[in-house]
Parts: sequence; C-alpha cells; structure tokens
Amino acid sequence: MPPPLMVQFRAGDAGPWRIERMLPVTGAALPAATHLAILEGTAPPPPGAAAWSLRGSTGNLRYTHRSEADSLAARQAGLGRPAARCAALIPIRKNAAWWSLAQDERRAILEEESQHIAIGMEYLPAISRRLHHSRELGEPFDFITWFEYAPEHAAAFDEMLRRLRAKPEWGFVEREVDLRLRRLD
Amino acid sequence: MPPPLMVQFRAGDAGPWRIERMLPVTGAALPAATHLAILEGTAPPPPGAAAWSLRGSTGNLRYTHRSEADSLAARQAGLGRPAARCAALIPIRKNAAWWSLAQDERRAILEEESQHIAIGMEYLPAISRRLHHSRELGEPFDFITWFEYAPEHAAAFDEMLRRLRAKPEWGFVEREVDLRLRRLD
Repeated sequence: MPPPLMVQFRAGDAGPWRIERMLPVTGAALPAATHLAILEGTAPPPPGAAAWSLRGSTGNLRYTHRSEADSLAARQAGLGRPAARCAALIPIRKNAAWWSLAQDERRAILEEESQHIAIGMEYLPAISRRLHHSRELGEPFDFITWFEYAPEHAAAFDEMLRRLRAKPEWGFVEREVDLRLRRLD
Repeated sequence: MPPPLMVQFRAGDAGPWRIERMLPVTGAALPAATHLAILEGTAPPPPGAAAWSLRGSTGNLRYTHRSEADSLAARQAGLGRPAARCAALIPIRKNAAWWSLAQDERRAILEEESQHIAIGMEYLPAISRRLHHSRELGEPFDFITWFEYAPEHAAAFDEMLRRLRAKPEWGFVEREVDLRLRRLD
C-alpha cells in the first residue's frame, strides 16, 4: 500500500486524454471541456486555462476485507497499460444519510446487499481502476474513480456500471457524472 | 453527522489555549510554542508567526459499529463546556504496516484486540473528544485528536491514555506527541 497520492483531474483545452462524452447521471454536469490532464503530486499543470479541476487522494482500504483484498491483488492490472486506450472518470457524491451510517451499516450496504467488490472483481483484469477520496478535501464530490480499459472491453465496462447502479448502494448517490475519454498519444 | 470541517491547530505566541507541556511519546517532538489557536473552516489566523500548524478534517465513522455509535451518542458531551478548562492535543502517525491492513484486520486490532472504543466509552461524558483525519491531506500525522476535560478529570484522562497505549493497536504508532493545554479566557 503506497502512501497517499494527491491527484488533480484538470479539464481544459490541453491534456493527453480527449473527453469524448460527458453524461450527468445524477445531478448537475460539469462544465464542457475537450481534454483532461491528470496531475499527480506536485506535477505542473499543462498550459491553458482549466474548465474545471477536481482533486482526490488515494488512500487505505475503507471496506475491503483481507480475503477480498487478496483476490483483487491476484487479479487486478495497474494503470498505464499500452492497450488500455479508453478511460472513464466518474466523480460521485453520496448523501447525508450515507455518511451518517456507522461503519458496519455502510459495509453491509456496499457489499452484502450490493456486491460492489464482487461485481468489480468479475471485470478484472480487463478494467483497471484507481479510487481517490475527496470528501475531506472540501471538494464537490466524495470520490473520483478513474478506470482504464481497452476498446474491446467498453461494452463490459458499461455492463459493470449498469449492474452497480441498480444496487441499493446507488440509492445513496446524490450526484454522479460519467465522462468517457480516449488517450491521444 | 455534520459535513466535514477543516480544522487548523496553530501554535505560536497567541491563542486562547496556553500550552503547559509537550511530551514526545514516540518519535520527534514539535517545535516549542506557548499558545494554541484552533481555526475552524476559513477562520482567520491570530496575529503573530506560527511555530507550527497541523491540519485535519472531521469525517465519518471509520470503525465504529451502529451499537457502539448509539452508546457513544447517548453518553458523550460536546466541546466548549465551561468547566472543561483542560485540553490535550495528540497527533498520531501509524506505520505502513497498519495502512496496508484490510478494513476487517484494522477493526479487529482496534476494537476486538485493543478495546479502543470501549475504553474511551468508560470516560464519557467527562472527557470530550473530536477526531480529525490528516493522512490524505499530506500532513505529517495521520490523525489529530483534541480532548477537553475539567481539571478534576485530569487523572482519569491520564489513566485512559495509559490503558490505550498498552494495547496492541499502539504497536502500530510510529509518531505520537502529547500536548496539554489550559484555556486562558
């Protein structure tokens, strides 16, 4: 488990990822932009003004049990695979009811009722993923998840999202934006 | 559960709390200072230079189960009680081994093996407490806990810390500083 990494997702008219579409799933969309740059740590921003910028930090496991973590580690692939030229950026905010739940209640909804970890596991290693926590940074979203996959896995990625969004956990989502991107280089 | 509140603990030569002593329990101390100010949200800092400043954000429950949260809520007192003229500021950093554990492993060490929640409960409502998360803010500590109590409960507070520090959870603490303060107004 590496130390927390601060990551800035910066949308504008420059960056190595082209934004192909943006769908406001729940609540307000983000301002329109054509490109995205991902700045890790203290990396300098690309030239040009930002249309918007979202920050999040990687961190420790919040819900995953040891047996699940070991299964994930055995199957998952990292970011930056040459074949993974498609990406999705999905910022989510959950409602006050979710955040008022105790730890055991949130875990039960996330996994025992909604199979969040188990469903994601079915799509490994095709879909790689990095989760960023934003809630305690004062950001407009609670989480930002970044996904990478090869073009031939785009349909599987959509299926995974449909399954997750149909579960009880998603009843607590009060804002969600779904951006799809393609690597330019 | 209120939304996250960013809090800055700012030590220098001005502020409503007088620092009476600082003990480096594990690892390096903090620079010497005589006063502490606590700035919530966007509150402006007091005049004078800061000797050091630590930031943390309140947040949702990380380990507490519903039954424990209900017991805590029924017994605990808030900050700012007129009789609670004593305070302690205890920033802690845990080691990489702790942060590499899965959620169920950390919960088991924290409560089933170390009774962190149960021990704290015994000292309610005398000791009031607010936990701030710092790890994902890039701060030198992972947590900052602020405690308030009346002078007649200072011995009980010390006893509580002795019991917690003797437990397996504290084997994962790699830096801890213990500051004691007294309210000036």
